[in-house]
Amino acid sequence: MASVTAPSARSMVRTFVRHYSAPIDSSIPASKVKYIPTSGTYPKGFKVSGTYVGVKAANKSNPDLAFIVSDRPAFGAAVFTTNKFQAAPVQVSRTVLEKRGGAGLRSIIINSGCANAVTGVGGLEDAQSMSDTATAQFQQSSQAEDGFGANSLVMSTGVIGQRLPIQKILSKIPSAYANIDDTHNAWLATAKAICTTDTFPKLLSTTFTLPSHPETEYRLAGMTKGAGMIHPNMATLLGILTTDAAISAPALKSLLTSAVEKSFNSISIDGDTSTNDTVAILANGAGTPSATTAPIPDDATSPDYAAMASILTSFAQRLSQLVVRDGEGATKFVQVSVRNAATAADARLIASTIARSPLVKTALYGKDANWGRILCAIGYTPNLSSADAVVPSKTNVSFVPAATSKSKDEGVLKLLVNGEPEAVDEDRAARLLEDEDLEIEVDLGTGSEDAQYWFCDFSHEYVTINGDYRT
Amino acid sequence: MASVTAPSARSMVRTFVRHYSAPIDSSIPASKVKYIPTSGTYPKGFKVSGTYVGVKAANKSNPDLAFIVSDRPAFGAAVFTTNKFQAAPVQVSRTVLEKRGGAGLRSIIINSGCANAVTGVGGLEDAQSMSDTATAQFQQSSQAEDGFGANSLVMSTGVIGQRLPIQKILSKIPSAYANIDDTHNAWLATAKAICTTDTFPKLLSTTFTLPSHPETEYRLAGMTKGAGMIHPNMATLLGILTTDAAISAPALKSLLTSAVEKSFNSISIDGDTSTNDTVAILANGAGTPSATTAPIPDDATSPDYAAMASILTSFAQRLSQLVVRDGEGATKFVQVSVRNAATAADARLIASTIARSPLVKTALYGKDANWGRILCAIGYTPNLSSADAVVPSKTNVSFVPAATSKSKDEGVLKLLVNGEPEAVDEDRAARLLEDEDLEIEVDLGTGSEDAQYWFCDFSHEYVTINGDYRT
Repeated sequence: MASVTAPSARSMVRTFVRHYSAPIDSSIPASKVKYIPTSGTYPKGFKVSGTYVGVKAANKSNPDLAFIVSDRPAFGAAVFTTNKFQAAPVQVSRTVLEKRGGAGLRSIIINSGCANAVTGVGGLEDAQSMSDTATAQFQQSSQAEDGFGANSLVMSTGVIGQRLPIQKILSKIPSAYANIDDTHNAWLATAKAICTTDTFPKLLSTTFTLPSHPETEYRLAGMTKGAGMIHPNMATLLGILTTDAAISAPALKSLLTSAVEKSFNSISIDGDTSTNDTVAILANGAGTPSATTAPIPDDATSPDYAAMASILTSFAQRLSQLVVRDGEGATKFVQVSVRNAATAADARLIASTIARSPLVKTALYGKDANWGRILCAIGYTPNLSSADAVVPSKTNVSFVPAATSKSKDEGVLKLLVNGEPEAVDEDRAARLLEDEDLEIEVDLGTGSEDAQYWFCDFSHEYVTINGDYRT
Repeated sequence: MASVTAPSARSMVRTFVRHYSAPIDSSIPASKVKYIPTSGTYPKGFKVSGTYVGVKAANKSNPDLAFIVSDRPAFGAAVFTTNKFQAAPVQVSRTVLEKRGGAGLRSIIINSGCANAVTGVGGLEDAQSMSDTATAQFQQSSQAEDGFGANSLVMSTGVIGQRLPIQKILSKIPSAYANIDDTHNAWLATAKAICTTDTFPKLLSTTFTLPSHPETEYRLAGMTKGAGMIHPNMATLLGILTTDAAISAPALKSLLTSAVEKSFNSISIDGDTSTNDTVAILANGAGTPSATTAPIPDDATSPDYAAMASILTSFAQRLSQLVVRDGEGATKFVQVSVRNAATAADARLIASTIARSPLVKTALYGKDANWGRILCAIGYTPNLSSADAVVPSKTNVSFVPAATSKSKDEGVLKLLVNGEPEAVDEDRAARLLEDEDLEIEVDLGTGSEDAQYWFCDFSHEYVTINGDYRT
């Protein structure tokens, strides 16, 4: 396993070193252990496995191939990166979904260690062969029985511009299939297999009911990986959601798109977006009370649809926040809430601009209550709806203690009130900034629209990690 | 003088420490000394001074008040920050220029150590009183003899949200005026007085001629300060240009706007833009062969106008590049050239997106030829002119050795050719990345428009400096 150092500061940053490519071993940071579940409630009809391949030669033992399998055809949907350079697996998965109309999906096959991005025609063939080989496990050829071709989505994450060791990967897919299981440990191993620079596996599960038959308990499970390059639209970020509810293909698409907008597309580590980002969902209906239970329709007025939208958004937010918790080098978890904007787009643009500002991010790392930088970021936000979207004399900025803060009882700390700076109690500010969790509240006073964003700070470790990623 | 440390890494980063607020003393880094001129050719009719005030209590001896004076009324123009939160001096200077129609200007008065931004009505009064008190040195009241009010521009740079120690500043303006001189040392002291986190003063001068009377030599001098928060539109960046050519007020405005677009608005340190950014120019005509020499008209077809545009742009580029050389924590100076874009705006957007990418910037710091990150940045550039502005199969990316590179004779290193990765000679890449100066060339192949941008890397020192700026 490669150790990572920034050449020009090699000796100084030794203690910041983080291991790569297959970092999930006993060295999970103590502060992160609390984010790893020790049990879970996983959707019926799904089995999963995490298998060792050795995609990166340096990886000698850690699982780097994840296989998520439904025992019956499932509806599926995905949200893909908007980067112009779309990795081969993104192109293949998009085609699989289009050909099948989001129906009849059986699995998702994922490797870490190599992104299979900017790899030309050969890379596309590699991604297709991963999907085909996964499909073959279900006694289907790529000219599958149902006539729609491969039924497996494919994802890759890692370094750009290198070809996959495709034969190694393909040769392990049968054993990956042989090893699928529905235990918590299987889910955890799978979540580990998709990690790259992540310091801990990100896995969540929950149960829920739907208004139309409240006696039936459904299950929803998800895993994600991220770390660097996380920003809207999206990043070296993979997210996989699975549920045993029955949701029609078009409903799944609109539910996922909306949930991702308010979760995976509302987080920022460094503002960079990657070639591979994909959040996919499979819904296999295995939890329905009967085989004839109607799937949730694509109708926002349906009570089941509305309930599912709320459940999925909230779950995706919790899951995506784990990515921020594990931002490369992050020491802070910050929520920025922009309120009373003229338009929802304005609120979102301002929240994302604050979340991306290197000066805000370094000030938070330094525990410096430098609200001037927050104000600057508000002030230079591009593409707002009108010249009056931000009015200095109506702008309010506050720090809000997190629910877990020791100084929670001291309440909100106002920094700027109607454009005029408050006399800030620096001791109070210092106490707030000692907390890992913090909320920045911006009230624009120019409308009634809100947005939330979650981000982390920029640290020395961020620079160290990203200064020498490829080694 | 405050020493700067990031609290959570205090002991590790000791050797990265940079001094603040009035850092210009004998401790100029050896690598930067070459950028400080030892002589100059300064415009006739201008005298300048750098004076100690102690705007920051911690500053015990370094000049922090700059006064740039023309011995006769000059035409003037300025480009201001587009941040919604405009500092008081920006508002006052804008009004001075508007009231006077860009004519009859006598001076620019500048303090460092406090930005006088987000300081409400009191801050506006402070900025106005600096302009008025400067004006009073020329035996004019703020109801000036010519009836157009104050004739001095005002600038401030430093921390946001704190009031100026205005009486201290005003009380020193008369001695600042008494000390003005036209020597190189006076210009250097003035350039030092505007610095904040800069590690060296940024001063340039040159001579030039105009086509209409080529026997006459004019002079052009400029100073700037920057460091962090530098990006288009613009940053905690001040620029002051002076010339003894005669240039009409409207010509000066259009010439400056165009030059700034290709210089100060084409550099990036961290992508943040501030409340105070101002680049101003004064042209006093003192170098003209006779008092009746016609000023350069606002007419792009005039040979003098065209020559002046070229001279001013090139000079502003050299000056603004010094800001990148002194980017907070910078170890690299990178030019990104985007060629053959569909539109000039596309070329510029892509260049600026690469220049702002934290992942590109940290890879350069780490001397990692991670061209995938450059490609990612190209691929996620927002707001391009069309869906075909970037076509992966037409995209080429290369490293070009700088003129000063030891490996210059090895020529261009191709990384991506028509969307396909090259087999990169990593030793060659490593040699290129050892250089301080580097050019990244992107050929989009979708049109014929070009843009250039200059930026620096993100280092550990950047995080250290910005983690605790206010102390």
